[in-house]
Amino acid sequence: MTALLDFVADAPLIDHHCHGVVAHDVDRGGFERMLTEADVVSPLGVSLFDSLIGLAVRARCAPVLDLPKHAPASDYLARRAELGVTEVNRRFLRATGTTDFLLDGGFQPGSVTTTAELADLSNARAHDVVRLEQVAEDVVRAGTTAAGFAADFDAELTRRAAGAVGVKSIAAYRVGLGLSGERPAPAEVADAAGRWLARVESGEPVRLADEVLHRHLVWAGIDRGLPVQFHVGYGDSDVDLHRCDPLLLTGLLRATRGSGVPILLLHNYPFHRRAAYLAQVFEHVFADVGLSTHNAGLRAPAVLAELLELIPFGKLLFSTDAFGLAELYHLGTGLFREGLSDFLRSALAADELSEVDAIRLVRLAGHENAARIYRLEPR
Amino acid sequence: MTALLDFVADAPLIDHHCHGVVAHDVDRGGFERMLTEADVVSPLGVSLFDSLIGLAVRARCAPVLDLPKHAPASDYLARRAELGVTEVNRRFLRATGTTDFLLDGGFQPGSVTTTAELADLSNARAHDVVRLEQVAEDVVRAGTTAAGFAADFDAELTRRAAGAVGVKSIAAYRVGLGLSGERPAPAEVADAAGRWLARVESGEPVRLADEVLHRHLVWAGIDRGLPVQFHVGYGDSDVDLHRCDPLLLTGLLRATRGSGVPILLLHNYPFHRRAAYLAQVFEHVFADVGLSTHNAGLRAPAVLAELLELIPFGKLLFSTDAFGLAELYHLGTGLFREGLSDFLRSALAADELSEVDAIRLVRLAGHENAARIYRLEPR
Amino acid sequence: MTALLDFVADAPLIDHHCHGVVAHDVDRGGFERMLTEADVVSPLGVSLFDSLIGLAVRARCAPVLDLPKHAPASDYLARRAELGVTEVNRRFLRATGTTDFLLDGGFQPGSVTTTAELADLSNARAHDVVRLEQVAEDVVRAGTTAAGFAADFDAELTRRAAGAVGVKSIAAYRVGLGLSGERPAPAEVADAAGRWLARVESGEPVRLADEVLHRHLVWAGIDRGLPVQFHVGYGDSDVDLHRCDPLLLTGLLRATRGSGVPILLLHNYPFHRRAAYLAQVFEHVFADVGLSTHNAGLRAPAVLAELLELIPFGKLLFSTDAFGLAELYHLGTGLFREGLSDFLRSALAADELSEVDAIRLVRLAGHENAARIYRLEPR
Repeated sequence: MTALLDFVADAPLIDHHCHGVVAHDVDRGGFERMLTEADVVSPLGVSLFDSLIGLAVRARCAPVLDLPKHAPASDYLARRAELGVTEVNRRFLRATGTTDFLLDGGFQPGSVTTTAELADLSNARAHDVVRLEQVAEDVVRAGTTAAGFAADFDAELTRRAAGAVGVKSIAAYRVGLGLSGERPAPAEVADAAGRWLARVESGEPVRLADEVLHRHLVWAGIDRGLPVQFHVGYGDSDVDLHRCDPLLLTGLLRATRGSGVPILLLHNYPFHRRAAYLAQVFEHVFADVGLSTHNAGLRAPAVLAELLELIPFGKLLFSTDAFGLAELYHLGTGLFREGLSDFLRSALAADELSEVDAIRLVRLAGHENAARIYRLEPR
Repeated sequence: MTALLDFVADAPLIDHHCHGVVAHDVDRGGFERMLTEADVVSPLGVSLFDSLIGLAVRARCAPVLDLPKHAPASDYLARRAELGVTEVNRRFLRATGTTDFLLDGGFQPGSVTTTAELADLSNARAHDVVRLEQVAEDVVRAGTTAAGFAADFDAELTRRAAGAVGVKSIAAYRVGLGLSGERPAPAEVADAAGRWLARVESGEPVRLADEVLHRHLVWAGIDRGLPVQFHVGYGDSDVDLHRCDPLLLTGLLRATRGSGVPILLLHNYPFHRRAAYLAQVFEHVFADVGLSTHNAGLRAPAVLAELLELIPFGKLLFSTDAFGLAELYHLGTGLFREGLSDFLRSALAADELSEVDAIRLVRLAGHENAARIYRLEPR
Repeated sequence: MTALLDFVADAPLIDHHCHGVVAHDVDRGGFERMLTEADVVSPLGVSLFDSLIGLAVRARCAPVLDLPKHAPASDYLARRAELGVTEVNRRFLRATGTTDFLLDGGFQPGSVTTTAELADLSNARAHDVVRLEQVAEDVVRAGTTAAGFAADFDAELTRRAAGAVGVKSIAAYRVGLGLSGERPAPAEVADAAGRWLARVESGEPVRLADEVLHRHLVWAGIDRGLPVQFHVGYGDSDVDLHRCDPLLLTGLLRATRGSGVPILLLHNYPFHRRAAYLAQVFEHVFADVGLSTHNAGLRAPAVLAELLELIPFGKLLFSTDAFGLAELYHLGTGLFREGLSDFLRSALAADELSEVDAIRLVRLAGHENAARIYRLEPR
């Protein structure tokens, strides 16, 4: 934790992929379950505080709650409870230096703040990103037919995308990223919708997991000219990580490069070098290393440096992928800044670039790229 | 080779995966063939001493044999012969600071020391890990039937597992790690055994390579509550490394997470970040970077640092995977200590954690995790 | 950019894989399109100068053209135009310290210098590597039959391979590296050739993309005892990178290890650790990290260090994979030297090896390995 370069410390950030925070107090189990991608805390392991992210909470978050660095986890949680979740959320969110949050509100929507609530807590702007699969599932829940699905989905997406700045696909979580490059024909979509509706009628839960339909949803985003985010790589135990290699999207990226619509590869760890390659060779592809940034704690700068090997600076984005705990926004932001600062400080020391270039890199990655892609209005 | 942090240098280690040492003198060709995972030394390349592990032998092992650092390979091997293999084995094994060796005795069993012999040479405790495939192959050699295989295997495993602390699967070497998550039904096991027996009767060597049977063996370990080790990743030229990605085990890990039985992912290089992810999201999964630790020589700390990005400290294990040459125990142990020490020293310098936490991390990884998982009695 | 170790700065280099340079002036768009593997410059991103390779051009190439370090891209391109392409090519090529260039002249052959022209510009030796697929495609263009293809190809390869030092397969670009280990039978080759000829007759362009035929071409190289290069990993947007993992060649490597013919894995990024593994366990396999070396700019030393983890020093090769821009030869060479120098300087400081060993490593990787494998005559 060396001091940050001034122009990194002060850089406004656009967090182009995150979620809401929980607005209720949590106990130790609840805190640990939201701290990493693990959903179970078990005596087989030990506390999840014993991990780089746990150390990062105690080193970097404790002082924000007026505690000494490295305060024990129990002290930390006691102080957190004492301050109350609203004060904790406000302190961490406002310490991030984030000007704009782009929220995917589709994950456990009832349990976390809405976009408007996050804007209020953080005293910043917040924008909606529409989770495509959630729209499709709501259309099915509301009642549709095989033949009518495409039109019903289209109408509902139009309704929800009004005011939204982008869409997001979670195909990675459902069928993996091995999506074909071809736009599915209307008959294929109707057939796939029919199979899905039959499964739902037979009692299965309403959960989209069909390669044709995920692909149809992505093209619906492309057709609207809305930036399309993809979950890629690292996630929780629901994901088959070997099916979430961004390279599996190569065919789709080739098919969509003429569209002029940005494709945003989220997270990417441990495939981030592959994402950087895609961002170099496909003019409409962008990438970040959100989620791993806070999970890897003091190793986050090393991960970011790997992404920087091939990615053009105009393609690099910042996100936290924070969910639930306000600490994650603080850590993701702080560790991203630290990664940029460490990288640039040593490059400046070796005279590998000028300070002017270093400042431009920070501006591009911190906010200019996201503002350009998502067409955010200047503040 | 900066000085180790005191609490790392002095930490007792449990080597949770290794093999025996050769008890006879070896010539230069024999030494080189055991030094790395190469099984041929060829004039197309040059001496395998010209590699990071070769440099590590000369820098780190030569002084143990009273030679100056960087002694030429020929001097090193001459001194080794002069001291004799028993003295060499004793010196290196006793210099490791290892309290317990967990031995897989199933690889080339006739050529190396037994568990009892290793305990004697090292003046430490040694425990057995039963190689599942060896048991199955011995059952076939002893004579069984398709219908009787499961019961015969079960009886023989019971006999051999008495006193053992775990079992090990080498499915990676035979069919890869793409094992289904489902427990095979008795009829499937009998059918697969029948196919195997037919191949053996037709003159093929007794070598298990059948996805159903490897899977059956793993479930037999799970049913006994014995920790199950998996060879993952890096190995010799017999392995199809692209089939040894630990992520291929995701389905099996999901299926076994309710069992409470630990799954131990061995080696993992170059997939160690993926193994760390699995150890984070599955409460019963643990991982190490044995084998690459000594092979990567001075780069071992860099490899360990990557594992540490996501792995909870309660899931990190130590192993050498040493086989044959006593130098490999010494190198694996020393380089693991160096990796921990380097990581912690720089983290302490940056005030990323407290010394108390650093000491706990070393205790967990060095011996507490292994003692807990394998239920080793306190010494 | 710390000063290089003397014996690294002065080491003669054999660039075992590169292409010709363009002999005409290029505008900014043309320069950017040749700078990285991107073939389109788009307002969605920003200038490709904003990338590590762009910074490297401005930091490391500008002084060769008498400009201050970090000169703006526009100044750099203006100065380049002022000097003229011949002078620019001569300056950069002669600054590399390369004694021998091994040229694959098969990529966009009309647009760049020939082998003889490169030798003249660089005042060094230049040798031919024959691109196998180009020979096969020319045989088809010249007119052949299904039954006659193998013989016609054989005759043409014999003609072109006279004086060549090796052959190269671009199967990676066409069908991926999942080539079977078996030598295709003559009837299979004739069948595959017949299918290809039928496609050509139906109006498809003459473009080889058939697993059987790519494999046949590789064996033709093996049979002649000519070192066989494989494009592996990183390339432009035509490549399906997930099909270019060198591990997919494992079966073919097993099948050819008895031949005594070297197999050269080119580029390999981001699979370079896997290539290093193959080079360790297969006695006839060699690897480099060309192409990524200049693209990764100041991160090139980090990439090289990963390759060094497992690769025996007798298996490490140097290449730039430079194409078109003379800057790429300069960057590839300079960054390879810097990678070796950084690695060895810190290893020497830690007393991990002796200077004698460091010097030998540089000699092996810089030129001795290539001279031995390609049987180049001493200069």
